[in-house]
Amino acid sequence: MDKPSLPSGTRDFAPAVMARRRFITGSIEQIYRLHGFAQLETPAMENLSVLLGKYGDEGDKLVFRILNSGDFLSDLPEPQRAAPEAKSWLPFVAGKGLRYDLTVPFARFVAMNRHLLHFPFRRYQIQPVWRADRPQKGRYREFWQCDADVIGTRSLMAEADLLLIMHEAFTALGLPDYQIRVSNRLILEAIALYAGRPELFRSMVVAIDKWDKIGADGVQRELGLAGFSEQESRKVLDCMQRLPLDEAAIVRLEQLLQAYPQAKQGLDALRTILLSGLRANLVLDTALARGLDYYTGCIFEAEIPGSGFGSVASGGRYDDLTGVFGVKDLSGVGISFGIDRLYDVLESRSAFPAGLDISTEVLLCPMDDACMTQCFAIAMELRRLGASSEVYPDAAKLRKQLDHANQRNIPYAIIVGSEEINTGVFPLKHLAKGSQEMLSLQNLYSRFRS
Amino acid sequence: MDKPSLPSGTRDFAPAVMARRRFITGSIEQIYRLHGFAQLETPAMENLSVLLGKYGDEGDKLVFRILNSGDFLSDLPEPQRAAPEAKSWLPFVAGKGLRYDLTVPFARFVAMNRHLLHFPFRRYQIQPVWRADRPQKGRYREFWQCDADVIGTRSLMAEADLLLIMHEAFTALGLPDYQIRVSNRLILEAIALYAGRPELFRSMVVAIDKWDKIGADGVQRELGLAGFSEQESRKVLDCMQRLPLDEAAIVRLEQLLQAYPQAKQGLDALRTILLSGLRANLVLDTALARGLDYYTGCIFEAEIPGSGFGSVASGGRYDDLTGVFGVKDLSGVGISFGIDRLYDVLESRSAFPAGLDISTEVLLCPMDDACMTQCFAIAMELRRLGASSEVYPDAAKLRKQLDHANQRNIPYAIIVGSEEINTGVFPLKHLAKGSQEMLSLQNLYSRFRS
Repeated sequence: MDKPSLPSGTRDFAPAVMARRRFITGSIEQIYRLHGFAQLETPAMENLSVLLGKYGDEGDKLVFRILNSGDFLSDLPEPQRAAPEAKSWLPFVAGKGLRYDLTVPFARFVAMNRHLLHFPFRRYQIQPVWRADRPQKGRYREFWQCDADVIGTRSLMAEADLLLIMHEAFTALGLPDYQIRVSNRLILEAIALYAGRPELFRSMVVAIDKWDKIGADGVQRELGLAGFSEQESRKVLDCMQRLPLDEAAIVRLEQLLQAYPQAKQGLDALRTILLSGLRANLVLDTALARGLDYYTGCIFEAEIPGSGFGSVASGGRYDDLTGVFGVKDLSGVGISFGIDRLYDVLESRSAFPAGLDISTEVLLCPMDDACMTQCFAIAMELRRLGASSEVYPDAAKLRKQLDHANQRNIPYAIIVGSEEINTGVFPLKHLAKGSQEMLSLQNLYSRFRS
Repeated sequence: MDKPSLPSGTRDFAPAVMARRRFITGSIEQIYRLHGFAQLETPAMENLSVLLGKYGDEGDKLVFRILNSGDFLSDLPEPQRAAPEAKSWLPFVAGKGLRYDLTVPFARFVAMNRHLLHFPFRRYQIQPVWRADRPQKGRYREFWQCDADVIGTRSLMAEADLLLIMHEAFTALGLPDYQIRVSNRLILEAIALYAGRPELFRSMVVAIDKWDKIGADGVQRELGLAGFSEQESRKVLDCMQRLPLDEAAIVRLEQLLQAYPQAKQGLDALRTILLSGLRANLVLDTALARGLDYYTGCIFEAEIPGSGFGSVASGGRYDDLTGVFGVKDLSGVGISFGIDRLYDVLESRSAFPAGLDISTEVLLCPMDDACMTQCFAIAMELRRLGASSEVYPDAAKLRKQLDHANQRNIPYAIIVGSEEINTGVFPLKHLAKGSQEMLSLQNLYSRFRS
């Protein structure tokens, strides 16, 4: 018999890890809900016609494909049949694939249900996605995304709301030292104009996007390779600013780029976002690019400075999410938290709250079989009071039962023997302290009344 | 452009449906947690060596297989390559499949992690599973299972605990008229002996398993076809009893089957379960068989009589869950709730609690852009008090904003204009009632203090 194993890049989440992951997803989910976002779930499998062509050629290669059921060769045309070749066979042997992100399924959902939805539509979605990436430290083939989007409004108040959500989420997770870098794609357009090379906009964005990895010198070198003269690339670098987001920072850039209405428009957007009242921890960073395509307005990226883990959340405005599915003119803005990254940050700081791994608060310890009914009755009342409780399933030696409680991290044990039932007084053991109290049932219950 | 669509047998869960599903899974999950069950999640993809051979030949055919990444034909041996044939190709083009149930992944997890686990190990798991079944009404290719198992103890107190969980779950879901039929595989063994045909045990179980569909006459006919004489099949039918589970019912069967120690052992197990104190809604049903293999002791099946939807939860004891992965002698018992069936029952009775589809309690209505900051501040305080709140993103006409609230089922709206900000008194509209109150911020907040 082979030893069983997991597919590479996938993980079991055993209870202790699961409790910590739930702390993260549960905290974020509660904030999404308090902000009026409604939950959507979409199927793990999507038709490949929905998935392919949305993530670039590289992305298409990373989509997990599901073999057609039954005789998967039956749709194969004769020419292909004669010459086995993976690439030309693909379209005929697999019609479905696994969800690659939550954004494309969301766009498909909106396109299919637009007549039933009331816009602006606020939805959140917390589900796994799958990518056939080469597994490596911190990169998995199955991982969770945790998205919220507002679709159907161009109002910048949607951006403001999502930034507030980020603030509240990081605060709830015990990461108040977060930093959110914000910018606007229009500012980058203005910078390309200011440098005099609007036709090199895309190359400029690619170069700027590497700022954190290769620094100012590296970006200048890349700009040179892309065709910027030294003077032109110097103008680009002059615009690279990372300043606390406030009126002063906005005005400074407005003056530098005053000739270009795009800059005014992009910076006005950031100014409007400040109406939410949120200011602290926001940084105006013109070196923020967030990839080439897709985003059209404000962009954000959050990290925990000094953690060494990079981006833990990001987002931005897009103007044509559903266009590819035939529904035009739905502008939206979304954010996504990286659950695995947040897990690693909290783990590295030992910042998870204590007690997350307690799955049972009270162990009822029966001293003989005749005490089982009483054990069940006490456990039932404790649960009614909100305390998770279980009955040790055998009248084993007390030592063995208490060992089990210690191994399982159960903080309390109640001993139930015939003497206790007769006298109505029960020992409550605090296992961490090694202490014990003798309590009537009434006092026992009030101890656990929350 | 093609209209986007969903793979057949899969579903989007839009917010209103999702809220109802969450009511079901959330209620059950809370009860699992109060009983000290810890959460496990396993990956959607498993190696096919883990999945295949566990669900019978029919089951193997229904496993969704994932095409190997990259050149999926590269592992194909020459003989196969020469003759395209789906069945002989399968092992070489797909090494992974989608989870078919939660039980086999749980067994794999226990086998891989047995040295880290403390037994008895109590785990719950709520995740989707996938089967390439022909889609039909009420049967999907992606559906959710909601399992709890206790593994590593032979104590019947584990069975008692799981029956109590069923009772609490149905009560929480507003289905107190549930009925749980219980039996024990050992009783069926005794019945085969009593009829004098122990060698026909499997055929007898197959026939009895159809009781609900074909009735007593049908079962008798099936027994005849299987080789039982008329007198023998009459003896089987004499043992078919459906009675409230109590001491009297147990004794009655004990007397009938007193020659067979298996009956005594199986009935004693049911007697022991009654130690939990739970009695109501339990039915001793000797016609309950729960399929052929796998289960070895107590078996249960719950339904809502008169609902027309069949089994909504089931379970039983197995003695060799992990044996197939090389870990012997771990006895366990588990239950599983059918989320889709429970949904259908509650839907058909209009028994979902009111208000589940309210995702936002309060809409803040800005009368002009200058009021946005105040809207955000009020919304933030309301959320702190636990009331989900959102700010309408534009200073649109009040009529339009209130229409949005009505369409979205938002029960309250607060109007924030410059006059309100100046006077400090804000109109709170109750949209369902069509009424309005004028309140200071302080009174507004105390209205939403939970």
